[in-house]
Amino acid sequence: MMYSEQGDHQVEVCFSPISWPLFEKENAVVIVTDVFRATTAICAAFENGVSAIIPAETVSESEYWKKEGYITAGERNGITLECADFGNSPYNFMDPALRGKVISMNTTNGTRAIRMAAEKENEILIGAFSNLSAVCRYAVNRQKDILILCAGWKDRFSMEDALFAGAAAGEITALGKGSYYSVCDSAIASHELWKLAEPDPVRFIEKAAHRHRLKKMGLDEVIPYCLRRDVTQKVPRLQSGRLVVENA
Amino acid sequence: MMYSEQGDHQVEVCFSPISWPLFEKENAVVIVTDVFRATTAICAAFENGVSAIIPAETVSESEYWKKEGYITAGERNGITLECADFGNSPYNFMDPALRGKVISMNTTNGTRAIRMAAEKENEILIGAFSNLSAVCRYAVNRQKDILILCAGWKDRFSMEDALFAGAAAGEITALGKGSYYSVCDSAIASHELWKLAEPDPVRFIEKAAHRHRLKKMGLDEVIPYCLRRDVTQKVPRLQSGRLVVENA
Repeated sequence: MMYSEQGDHQVEVCFSPISWPLFEKENAVVIVTDVFRATTAICAAFENGVSAIIPAETVSESEYWKKEGYITAGERNGITLECADFGNSPYNFMDPALRGKVISMNTTNGTRAIRMAAEKENEILIGAFSNLSAVCRYAVNRQKDILILCAGWKDRFSMEDALFAGAAAGEITALGKGSYYSVCDSAIASHELWKLAEPDPVRFIEKAAHRHRLKKMGLDEVIPYCLRRDVTQKVPRLQSGRLVVENA
Repeated sequence: MMYSEQGDHQVEVCFSPISWPLFEKENAVVIVTDVFRATTAICAAFENGVSAIIPAETVSESEYWKKEGYITAGERNGITLECADFGNSPYNFMDPALRGKVISMNTTNGTRAIRMAAEKENEILIGAFSNLSAVCRYAVNRQKDILILCAGWKDRFSMEDALFAGAAAGEITALGKGSYYSVCDSAIASHELWKLAEPDPVRFIEKAAHRHRLKKMGLDEVIPYCLRRDVTQKVPRLQSGRLVVENA
């Protein structure tokens, strides 16, 4: 059972950026997740050897980075930005030509979540199923409170992000060997949902709304990849406004 | 499976008042729930024959109603208000002396949720496990979109309210016989959680944070009652700022 009042550090799950003011605190580790597809794409990029990602929020920010000569990725509501070289499918970030490059990336929900998390003096990590074990191990090793921030869908609860949060909360509790406690109902609920989904996440996510949104746009071919665990050991981390990696 | 794009009317679940601006619309039925304990207490009051309940939000509002000669119930963080005749345990509302009376009631989370829901021209109903079937039947008979608004705990997701929401979303979908659809991940997630909890809700809620909060304050003796289904057929409804009943 996830509920526990015993431990040195707390693990909490925030289902949406709109609830972030209720959760944010100083001196914590924040794992930001946007499973379909931003944070999965970021992990894929670093696994492929990309050297840094600059998160962009507005279209004009992306246009700025493009003009500065950076490779530019980005979408708005699933459609590739006019100024972008490609959209946010993780597969786009696996091109060997991207190795060693810095990419500017614009996403509907992910960038805003990253920036909100960065408002306080916290350590911001990028989490996805593809780096689940690595990001949890890295976070637990910091021996601080851990907040998992779901990017959601336009500030709404989103199933796939909650499933990641539940898987991560379970992993953190297990890795922490009693040092992490949780009195947070959203952590408990997401862990219960993850236990239901774990035997067959692709099938479970059939129930979710965003999966259908992606399907309608022909973007759903990445879903099995986005739900695959531990494809990479990379742990992207925000440093001076850029995402860079450290190995766990 | 809850997910469906087919139907005349939508059912959605809002996990917290903080997310309400993303959900609110015109011409809908809103079921407000605060299982531990406000909405369960309200249903108990009407089952006991109380004639109306005036929801109060601030302490000075409660003091006003008290001065006006009304029976006054209310708590702040589980402690009975100084001006109140009694606190918010459902058992307090079962006293036969209350029959036919109007009660002013102040709650930590419930009143604010009721007032937020009332900002648009919607029909506001009070839901709890104790009137689950009745409130769902009443709502479905209106043949409008249905929003379930969880009062939560200080704007956070709360397990017991999500369980009610999941139970109600399932009931509405079943009663609606295909006329209700849902593309809402929080409806889907809460229904999955409810299916896990349904065989033994009291045991399941052991995992939840608010249950422990109540226990610490010695207020947890009402939990089994708050999780009992269909104790009453009363459907409290907001009318000119007061809750009154109509039988389903």
